[in-house]
Amino acid sequence: MSGTTPTQAPTPVTVIGLGNLGRALAEALVDRGHPTTVWNRTPGRADALVARGARRAETVAEAVAASPLVVVCVLDYPAATTVLAPAAGALAGRTLVNITSGTPEPVRELAAWATGHGAHYLDGAVYAVPQTIGTPEAFVLYSGSRAAFDTARETLDPTLGAGLFAGTDPTLASVQDMAVLAAMYGMFAGFFHGVALAGTAGISGAEITGPMTRWLTSAVATLPQFAREIDTADYDATETSTIDINRAGLGAILTAGRPRGVDDRLLAPLLDLFERQAAEGHGSASLARAIESFVVA
Amino acid sequence: MSGTTPTQAPTPVTVIGLGNLGRALAEALVDRGHPTTVWNRTPGRADALVARGARRAETVAEAVAASPLVVVCVLDYPAATTVLAPAAGALAGRTLVNITSGTPEPVRELAAWATGHGAHYLDGAVYAVPQTIGTPEAFVLYSGSRAAFDTARETLDPTLGAGLFAGTDPTLASVQDMAVLAAMYGMFAGFFHGVALAGTAGISGAEITGPMTRWLTSAVATLPQFAREIDTADYDATETSTIDINRAGLGAILTAGRPRGVDDRLLAPLLDLFERQAAEGHGSASLARAIESFVVA
Repeated sequence: MSGTTPTQAPTPVTVIGLGNLGRALAEALVDRGHPTTVWNRTPGRADALVARGARRAETVAEAVAASPLVVVCVLDYPAATTVLAPAAGALAGRTLVNITSGTPEPVRELAAWATGHGAHYLDGAVYAVPQTIGTPEAFVLYSGSRAAFDTARETLDPTLGAGLFAGTDPTLASVQDMAVLAAMYGMFAGFFHGVALAGTAGISGAEITGPMTRWLTSAVATLPQFAREIDTADYDATETSTIDINRAGLGAILTAGRPRGVDDRLLAPLLDLFERQAAEGHGSASLARAIESFVVA
Repeated sequence: MSGTTPTQAPTPVTVIGLGNLGRALAEALVDRGHPTTVWNRTPGRADALVARGARRAETVAEAVAASPLVVVCVLDYPAATTVLAPAAGALAGRTLVNITSGTPEPVRELAAWATGHGAHYLDGAVYAVPQTIGTPEAFVLYSGSRAAFDTARETLDPTLGAGLFAGTDPTLASVQDMAVLAAMYGMFAGFFHGVALAGTAGISGAEITGPMTRWLTSAVATLPQFAREIDTADYDATETSTIDINRAGLGAILTAGRPRGVDDRLLAPLLDLFERQAAEGHGSASLARAIESFVVA
């Protein structure tokens, strides 16, 4: 609690689960003067934190009872459910923030269970690596109890990352998280294809990553315009390039890569969307119209 | 030529091909005081530029003869070859910069042809949209004659974009360009998947693009570390996450999407690379090792 002159005493916080993320959060909490209680299945994980000033709880029930704000970050939802079960009786009135990654269905179940025991439940998806926890680069998507969000962010914005509220349906953060990560995985796939293609000309990964990251940063900035086109189903391509231009461009990339031994499997499915749009007469529409050949529902 | 007090007279430049990119470049050249000669197959395209101060050439041969620096930006390489043919006799000693997009083979042919006629040939891939031409955001990958690069960039860095030299093999800019665009296309594919998935929960494209672009910008910054791992074939995952973590993460995204009507075709091929790595016993390696299941050669 040294080094700060808080206008009010920092909120006591409990952190359950001391993986890389949980440890980084608990350290940040201790450093900012929060009375911090920690629990981990393997108690040794808490040693360094206890030396730093955290308190080790002997049981999960004791850990939950120690603080009005409880943050859970264990491996997955089954683990969260199992770990919290013995503490059900201690949940009433507390803010329970679960920053475990998961798909919507188990989020819904855990939220219902916790709410049924009187907790204010908040589900969070953290966008940070341990090194960026609590820095301006980190952010957290939350959904669930709005009151819990308003309470928790005062403590967690500076120690975990800036909070964004996705809505009161507790599964929304999970759905948004999957959507965000889908975009990241697509980028990784394109990166692999690009690095493989460059390699056929003796260009190293380090060399191609220079212009690649520079251009990707610009290309990321074009996504909001694509999103507007998709939201309005207005694909007139005055601000973006056309299906035909990108069909030719991506087609040339795949055609040039094959004889060099670069498999087309990662990007051929996108070219197929462009081909379908062109076949339906939408070659001069914005490339964002490709999503119309993809959405099933 | 007003408004500047150059220490030496600006180089005369010819621009052949007045699509969006060629027009934007010619405008920037005129505005910076370069005597600018333009030619386009459809002469009317030059009217606004002539009114601004450019000179219209009647033939391509006249256009090439007008300037020591000639920039070609037509639709593709067959068009560039056809357009330049009548001007072959005027090429000797001139710097010919071709910023038409293309695959390596036609680049090699055009470069050989132009060099055979005594031109200093430079091939360029422009990373800009017409609105960003000549701004600090724009950049250009060049390959071919180093002397041509050194000469041309003095004029083209401020009017087109900052030049990066990829090497003296004229096809290198084309290969690097395809690699960079492959990464972009992968990101677009992931974006489509993510927007479709978010849409199943009533989340608009505009809404999901907020956290998505924010996280993608962070994720782009991780690519140089992946590239180092690939270049050294050292995938020990101390600085990146593992094949197993990402296999589970991407698997969950696709599993959760299917019953919601989100097709998995764009990202399933990447999951397959993760599965192959895991099957070969590399589950605890860095996710960048997925490229080893992709490269054929």
